[in-house]
Amino acid sequence: MTHPLYERHRETLERALAACHSREYWSAYAEMPSGRLYGEDTAEQARAAFNAQLGQPFALAQAGSVDWVGEERSPYGFALDIRYPRADLDVLLPAMQAAMSAWRRAGADTRAGVCLEILARLNRASFEIAEAVMHTTGQAFMMAFQAGGPHAQDRGLEAVAYAWQAMHEQAGSAHWVKPQGKAEPLQLDKTFTVMPRGVALVIGCCTFPTWNGYPGLFASLVTGNAVLVKPHAGAVLPLAITVRICREVLAEAGFDPELVALAVGTPGATLALRPEVRIIDFTGSSANGEWLEHNARQAQVFTEKAGVNSVVIDATDDFRGLVRNLSFSLALYSGQMCTAPQNFYIPRDGIDTEDGHKSFDEVAQALAGGVQKLLSDPARAVEVLGAIQNRGVLERLEAAQQLGAVVLASQAIEHPRYADACVRTPLLLKLDAARDEAVFSHEHFGPIAFCIATDDTAHSIALAKRLIQSHGALTAAVYARDAAVLEAMREAMLEAGVALSENLTGGVFVNQSAAFSDFHGTGANPAANAALSDSAFVASRFRVVQSRRPA
Amino acid sequence: MTHPLYERHRETLERALAACHSREYWSAYAEMPSGRLYGEDTAEQARAAFNAQLGQPFALAQAGSVDWVGEERSPYGFALDIRYPRADLDVLLPAMQAAMSAWRRAGADTRAGVCLEILARLNRASFEIAEAVMHTTGQAFMMAFQAGGPHAQDRGLEAVAYAWQAMHEQAGSAHWVKPQGKAEPLQLDKTFTVMPRGVALVIGCCTFPTWNGYPGLFASLVTGNAVLVKPHAGAVLPLAITVRICREVLAEAGFDPELVALAVGTPGATLALRPEVRIIDFTGSSANGEWLEHNARQAQVFTEKAGVNSVVIDATDDFRGLVRNLSFSLALYSGQMCTAPQNFYIPRDGIDTEDGHKSFDEVAQALAGGVQKLLSDPARAVEVLGAIQNRGVLERLEAAQQLGAVVLASQAIEHPRYADACVRTPLLLKLDAARDEAVFSHEHFGPIAFCIATDDTAHSIALAKRLIQSHGALTAAVYARDAAVLEAMREAMLEAGVALSENLTGGVFVNQSAAFSDFHGTGANPAANAALSDSAFVASRFRVVQSRRPA
Repeated sequence: MTHPLYERHRETLERALAACHSREYWSAYAEMPSGRLYGEDTAEQARAAFNAQLGQPFALAQAGSVDWVGEERSPYGFALDIRYPRADLDVLLPAMQAAMSAWRRAGADTRAGVCLEILARLNRASFEIAEAVMHTTGQAFMMAFQAGGPHAQDRGLEAVAYAWQAMHEQAGSAHWVKPQGKAEPLQLDKTFTVMPRGVALVIGCCTFPTWNGYPGLFASLVTGNAVLVKPHAGAVLPLAITVRICREVLAEAGFDPELVALAVGTPGATLALRPEVRIIDFTGSSANGEWLEHNARQAQVFTEKAGVNSVVIDATDDFRGLVRNLSFSLALYSGQMCTAPQNFYIPRDGIDTEDGHKSFDEVAQALAGGVQKLLSDPARAVEVLGAIQNRGVLERLEAAQQLGAVVLASQAIEHPRYADACVRTPLLLKLDAARDEAVFSHEHFGPIAFCIATDDTAHSIALAKRLIQSHGALTAAVYARDAAVLEAMREAMLEAGVALSENLTGGVFVNQSAAFSDFHGTGANPAANAALSDSAFVASRFRVVQSRRPA
Repeated sequence: MTHPLYERHRETLERALAACHSREYWSAYAEMPSGRLYGEDTAEQARAAFNAQLGQPFALAQAGSVDWVGEERSPYGFALDIRYPRADLDVLLPAMQAAMSAWRRAGADTRAGVCLEILARLNRASFEIAEAVMHTTGQAFMMAFQAGGPHAQDRGLEAVAYAWQAMHEQAGSAHWVKPQGKAEPLQLDKTFTVMPRGVALVIGCCTFPTWNGYPGLFASLVTGNAVLVKPHAGAVLPLAITVRICREVLAEAGFDPELVALAVGTPGATLALRPEVRIIDFTGSSANGEWLEHNARQAQVFTEKAGVNSVVIDATDDFRGLVRNLSFSLALYSGQMCTAPQNFYIPRDGIDTEDGHKSFDEVAQALAGGVQKLLSDPARAVEVLGAIQNRGVLERLEAAQQLGAVVLASQAIEHPRYADACVRTPLLLKLDAARDEAVFSHEHFGPIAFCIATDDTAHSIALAKRLIQSHGALTAAVYARDAAVLEAMREAMLEAGVALSENLTGGVFVNQSAAFSDFHGTGANPAANAALSDSAFVASRFRVVQSRRPA
């Protein structure tokens, strides 16, 4: 009696669950944009489809559409001019609620099967989504494909796996027999039903709309809720394509497509306070996230906000590797990643390396040199940097030059293929721990980083810990040789509640987080109140309601 | 390398987990107050110990004690005159925080072993706790023993089991190997650490201080948090004994006893807003619970509040069983249970029974007669009713006579052994669904119930559903013969998010909820934002923090 889509994807689900438990490497979706894997013509078709969509309405046929809105511009320098349906919430939300009844009754396995079919279709659309991600977020193509496609799909699958397991931990029925000494036992038959909470709202960001959006979307959908997807106004297309594919698969599987709908042109705050909305997943600024946590009291609110990602540099056996690794972390997507490092805490007396002692200035200069070397060829540079997503980042970058002594100035780079693309290299400043805390104690989202002179590594660790406890962070890193220093940093970061990367000098970067193995966020510091994905991320998206009767 | 206490209690933990999964009957602690099971002299020793405690300070030796406070009175008519240490929070809370480091490092198994040893000691103290529960809550002895002792211990064990499982789902380490085509694979060693959130606050109620308090206490403690227990001022002793036993076991096991401490004499609101407090478990009024949900933003807040417990009577094949069963539910502990039925929805044209049709008035009179019969012998009556816990209940009961037509008046009963005990029988009123909603749409905590005339059973179900969705409920019940009516009620209560009992005419009562099988609360209606206990109740009490390094 299992659903064919569940049967089709059962092995993928089981492998995902095994990976969640072992936390070993696994991925369901191929990360290389290869014609052999994805079809030889697929890349070209996706570009053609993207170009054909420009200037056109995006058809969704969802309930309550009243007019068309859209204002996206590619960071590569042209207007998308795509219009999306704006909904009358008093029509759309009741339609979404009505759709939940059959979806809830279908059960966890069928819902998981449908969600995995959606993910499989999203995977097949990875090139199309990559075009959309590239020309809304400004990511370079490879990142747009990987992070926007297969890596986001892995994160969605991970959320489905956790939620499926949480629902399956609950028995559906029980026969309860309580002995009564010599008398007849008391006997009851009991039924336990997984019930959704209501409409779930996903509020997307403008940098990683799919990667940050899929965990909440799929965790809520598979647990029986309807999902209203509200993209950032600057990055609608990747999530509009996602919603279209969700609706296509739902309809094909015999469910009401209104289970997943797009919300554009209505402020997030308006959506978030609707009584129908019972779950909210948010990625964005601390101000907006905290507003939701404080005001959307009718909903379970999961937030990922801003933080002060921190790197403590104490010593290294591979200074060139350190420089190469951190330079890439700084440059990747122009630092427009919530996981990009910002604060480099370095003793003012310098550090020990395999090449002997390096002064504070030598370390800072080496980082600057590493970035310059990485970005020396414009054609290669733009494939690392991507483009600046919005004017806010650009203005922040320009203003940041005044915040300290410039070690490396930010430069504009002309994109070989997009003349109007806004491409900038990282800005690296020198600051002093004692004097400049007002500067480095908050997030400067974008290609802005600080080399901060501290008294010593103990000071660096204490400062990093204190700022993360008060202002949050999604990542931390340390470079050290002494086991006691590593242990002190581990302890401090456990207490600060942040994921720590140690001595990364090779091909893994502090800003990367791998589904099924790395948690994104911890919920233990102010940068996020949840982790992608763990049992706490899924457990409260449904409730168990029981009935009982004499047997 | 496992802890001896974990080894000692491992089988109990495993059996508890199996019961949570099967939801079949199981109990770890014997519910009969039998000398054979608990020791022949134990009852007498407990009474002597209780009497010896009267008028004395309650020694705890916890950090920061500054003076002594206490104002408990037995509902059986005498002052307890016990004084408890009031703490300087600026001393106690840092001491509790400091105690968490070693407790966290001990790991989930050791913490579970210590928690199960605490529960075993609490079980041995069940007679002592029963005396304390009886003379603070007003419960009759049997209920004080069962609900305050073994049933509460079962609920604590259930919470430990769920939390232990949630922590064990998380791998402690992983070796991550990502293939890189023909190049060397990327390899990382990863460590995952379960971290507590901080100090957990348990805010107890005056009717079931241990039963409602233990789930939060043990769920927080076993996940590595320190627990501050704030009893209701009128029911301190049961939780003070609990805290004493927790501290004794913790110290014997080599941990800092400040991991569990008592808070008396400081308002709950003051405690709840302390930045050290990161988890709150609350049982009490809707006003206080909602205040916490809205204001204690630094904490995870779990609340059980008030609701409108509802019974829909459509038809029955066992009218005498129905009457006997509901009469007991009304009388038990004078209706001072958050699970006691209040609203009986009955069609104004009456119901069909095995004895033929009964008019609305006949049904109401039969319920009144059932209560009268149950309570006709004062010596037996007081063992069902217990005593009225506080003046608020008494005043509400007296005022309630004016709310409708009296079917059964409340009477004072003289207690054979406690001349000054405040004992009252239930008040049963007739109301009309169309006219009196302002009366029956909120909780009248205490021995107050309403027979509400509805147009028909469809009206009854719709009304029950609507009021539960807007005002909450912890229990619902239905009496019906027609499968379609039962199905309609099940659907309505699923959507209202409340546990449903069907056709209870024997020895199981709607107000009873059995650990390991029945959930107490659902989190799906306004009466509670959590369920005792499920995975959502435990999953966010800890966070997982990782570190990773090249392998």
